[in-house]
Amino acid sequence: MSGTLFTLGMGPGDPELVTRKAARILGAAPVVAYFAKAGRIGHARGIAEGMIAPQAEELRFDYPMTTEISPHDGRYVDAMAACYAAAAETLAERLATGLDVALLCEGDPFFYGSSMYLFDRLRDRFATEIVPGVLGMSGCWAEARLPMTHGDDVLAVLPGTMTAEALAGHLAGADAAVIMKLGRNLPKVRAALETAGRADRAVYVERGTMAGSRIQPLAEKVDDAAPYFSLILVPGRQRPR
Amino acid sequence: MSGTLFTLGMGPGDPELVTRKAARILGAAPVVAYFAKAGRIGHARGIAEGMIAPQAEELRFDYPMTTEISPHDGRYVDAMAACYAAAAETLAERLATGLDVALLCEGDPFFYGSSMYLFDRLRDRFATEIVPGVLGMSGCWAEARLPMTHGDDVLAVLPGTMTAEALAGHLAGADAAVIMKLGRNLPKVRAALETAGRADRAVYVERGTMAGSRIQPLAEKVDDAAPYFSLILVPGRQRPR
Repeated sequence: MSGTLFTLGMGPGDPELVTRKAARILGAAPVVAYFAKAGRIGHARGIAEGMIAPQAEELRFDYPMTTEISPHDGRYVDAMAACYAAAAETLAERLATGLDVALLCEGDPFFYGSSMYLFDRLRDRFATEIVPGVLGMSGCWAEARLPMTHGDDVLAVLPGTMTAEALAGHLAGADAAVIMKLGRNLPKVRAALETAGRADRAVYVERGTMAGSRIQPLAEKVDDAAPYFSLILVPGRQRPR
Repeated sequence: MSGTLFTLGMGPGDPELVTRKAARILGAAPVVAYFAKAGRIGHARGIAEGMIAPQAEELRFDYPMTTEISPHDGRYVDAMAACYAAAAETLAERLATGLDVALLCEGDPFFYGSSMYLFDRLRDRFATEIVPGVLGMSGCWAEARLPMTHGDDVLAVLPGTMTAEALAGHLAGADAAVIMKLGRNLPKVRAALETAGRADRAVYVERGTMAGSRIQPLAEKVDDAAPYFSLILVPGRQRPR
């Protein structure tokens, strides 16, 4: 009798924004797994602090690299694939002995989450359950007190890695937008927002729902430094109600 | 000393998908408010069953109408505005006497939520806090076991009320899509998915995370009946990892 792979959305950062379901499953899991950047605690693991059973085995998987080389570089793809394959096999060993595994994921597991690559490798071999979580962007727009989408608004979720032209095109066609993966792309994103006529409504959010969060209109952010946990919110149409 | 307006995201439907923060605030609130369709329990109120303090006052606000007339009809706009204004004043009376109010919202409050119209009317007069929730669409893609967005995918969230041409245009430009507000729009949405070459990947989800949920490839759904709590998911690019 094999164990079940539970993939748990841990929400945007505030541990109280974990769902009751994820907290229950996490507290009972004999094995808890998560990804982390080398040298860091790991964002999902940090959120889980105090929720893990004392006797649980923790499995930490270090990302082989993150922003050092381009994700379109073949070496990046190969290194990540090897990392995911090895992590999946480690989980498979535990599952095969009948142990349930809780795989932690910041935000929601199926929304730009690394855990999908393990789920894809294990879904045909073991029982699985996905517990959705509060999206990072939801935590950000709540903390920014920014109602995002009303009525028939179109929302576009865009990576800052796109070209300025592609970004501006998507922004012009949507009512509301979220732009992620800022980092070194911020000057280009700013230019695309100006081209699309949305720069004046854009709000910059850094570390939403976490300690040290920072929220300001993009127009008032004079520097171009943007860490990994940052994004830009463009709210949709406001109705006179 | 006035009370605080807490706007609580109640998640997609499963009561266990409420966050620990929303559950804590809800259990302590002396006043609990929510919208409901006439003759129904109200979706957010249904999720909250068993979490409300026994002595709490419940304030139910009936929508004056929902799908009977077009949201672009002036009578609809006027009737909804009057409903929101009256509800806001009812909450203001409680807040002014020092009582905290928990305003319940299915999914996430700032993502197509009616509670935004009360928040907008009260935010300058009272202390407010927004508690984000798991989005309805997250609950659907988790239950459908459908990883939605990877890497640099663009996600479009689209209302089924758009024209077929506009829908097809957005679908062609995005990697992943969620189409809401199906109802009578389903035949048009289906045609737009076919025009954009995405019909074969589309998955229909009805009542995600709730009792009686139904999930199937859109191609296998032969009828065009789609209730309010239904949507279509088009997953993004799948990477060979």
